[in-house]
Parts: sequence; structure tokens; C-alpha cells
Amino acid sequence: MAKREFVTAKWLGNMAFEAEVNGHKIVLDAEPHVGGENRGPRPKPFMLVALGGCTAMDVISILKKMRVEVERFNVRVEGDLTEEHPKQFYNMHVIFEFTGKNLPVEKLEKAVKLSEERYCGVSAVYKKIIKLTSEIRVFES
Amino acid sequence: MAKREFVTAKWLGNMAFEAEVNGHKIVLDAEPHVGGENRGPRPKPFMLVALGGCTAMDVISILKKMRVEVERFNVRVEGDLTEEHPKQFYNMHVIFEFTGKNLPVEKLEKAVKLSEERYCGVSAVYKKIIKLTSEIRVFES
Repeated sequence: MAKREFVTAKWLGNMAFEAEVNGHKIVLDAEPHVGGENRGPRPKPFMLVALGGCTAMDVISILKKMRVEVERFNVRVEGDLTEEHPKQFYNMHVIFEFTGKNLPVEKLEKAVKLSEERYCGVSAVYKKIIKLTSEIRVFES
Repeated sequence: MAKREFVTAKWLGNMAFEAEVNGHKIVLDAEPHVGGENRGPRPKPFMLVALGGCTAMDVISILKKMRVEVERFNVRVEGDLTEEHPKQFYNMHVIFEFTGKNLPVEKLEKAVKLSEERYCGVSAVYKKIIKLTSEIRVFES
């Protein structure tokens, strides 16, 4: 039996909605120039959050298993939208930024590759239709 | 020039990350049985939030233009995950629940259809690879 996930969104008036996700509440809203009040983020960038969060959690847990200790770890996901409507992502780029002492770059690369190719269920869907690329940046602490 | 969107995620330690989306901060975390502390939602359901939020904002703004007044409006998005790894959505179902007085059902259906077929840039991507279905439920207030 396949697992079913669900989220709900309750209208708060105007363009704002309160989403409930795994028991946590998040407000979404539109920008003022389309009638919103910016009470929360826009919906579309959550496609990038799903990818960034999924691969970030994979990578940090793989590095833990490899006994690689990073001091800071940031992930940035950029997505390019088509000009024609409906505006949609056709390209996403993930930047992994690691900070630590003498970090083993080949292990960082391996962790990222394992997430992209084997573990991340969000990449697995997106890469069928969106061009996905990534890069690693390493900083000495 | 295509528009570029981005999000960032900063590691908070353990499995938790703080994402920044349109200037708003959201914590993501894993479940305790995989080493997290449930400080925030899991990443993958944000694929459902993106779809639900996008179509919900479309529908409420189309209904406003149609001068249809709803009292309450909830959207629920269900997604089925594959059993094989990496577990990924292969099916999503959107349930639109409208509450109001004598709501014009054909206009509600038209608003949903316009979002699905013309306006929602998240549906536009997902429907290339995921089976998307929807239903409308109308309640008299």
C-alpha cells in the first residue's frame, strides 16, 4: 500500500491562505501588486524549498554516516521561470556551501551525487522534466 | 530575460534547516525516527503546498473577478508516493471545498478548470509527469 501524504490550505481572506503541513502552519500570500499583502511567501518557490530541503537533509545525513564534520552548511536553490504563461520552472540550480576545517571535497561531492541520483525523491520527479544542475562551494573556517 | 526565483536553506544542526522564501523564514525538519526533532514540516510535502497554494490563489482571484462570493474556501492536496526508492509522488488529487449561499457550481468548476489548464504554473509542470486529478465540494452556509 503506497503512502499518502496530504496538506490543507484554509483561506484567510483576500489572497492569503494558511497551509498545514505535518501539523505545522505556514501562511502563503501574494504580492501587493497582484492584490496580496505579503503575509507569507508565494506558492511557486515552495517547489524550490521541496528540492533544497530534500537534498540538504540527504547530504547532511550522508556526511554524518561518513563521519565528515561540517561547521556550517547552506543550500541555495535557483529556478528560472519561462516568460510565457503559465510561468513555470524549466531550470533549477542547487548551490551547496560547506564551511569547515580541511573538508574532504571528494566526500562532499559523493554525498551530493548520492542524493541527486539515489536518495532524493523530489529530484527524482523534477529531473524528468526540468534541467537540474548543482555546484559545491567549500570554505575553510 | 527570464525571471529567476531563489530560496536559501541554512543548517540549524541535526536535521533541521531554516529556509528563507520571499523574505519569510520557515523551519524544515525530519521526523524523530530518522534523527530529526519535528521542529518543522518535511520537505517533500512542500511539492503539494506549491500546487495547492498556486491553484487556490488562482481560483479565489478568478471568483472575485466573476463576482462570486464564497464564505469559506479550503483546498486539500493529497499525493501518493511510490513504494520503491526514492519515494516520489506519482499521483496528486486536489479537493476544493467551497462554502457559501447558493453558490453557482458551474462558475466554481470554470474557475478550477481555468487554473488547472491556463493559469497555474505549478500544475503546468507537474502534469507532464504526475497524474493530477481534482474534485469540487460545495457546502451551503
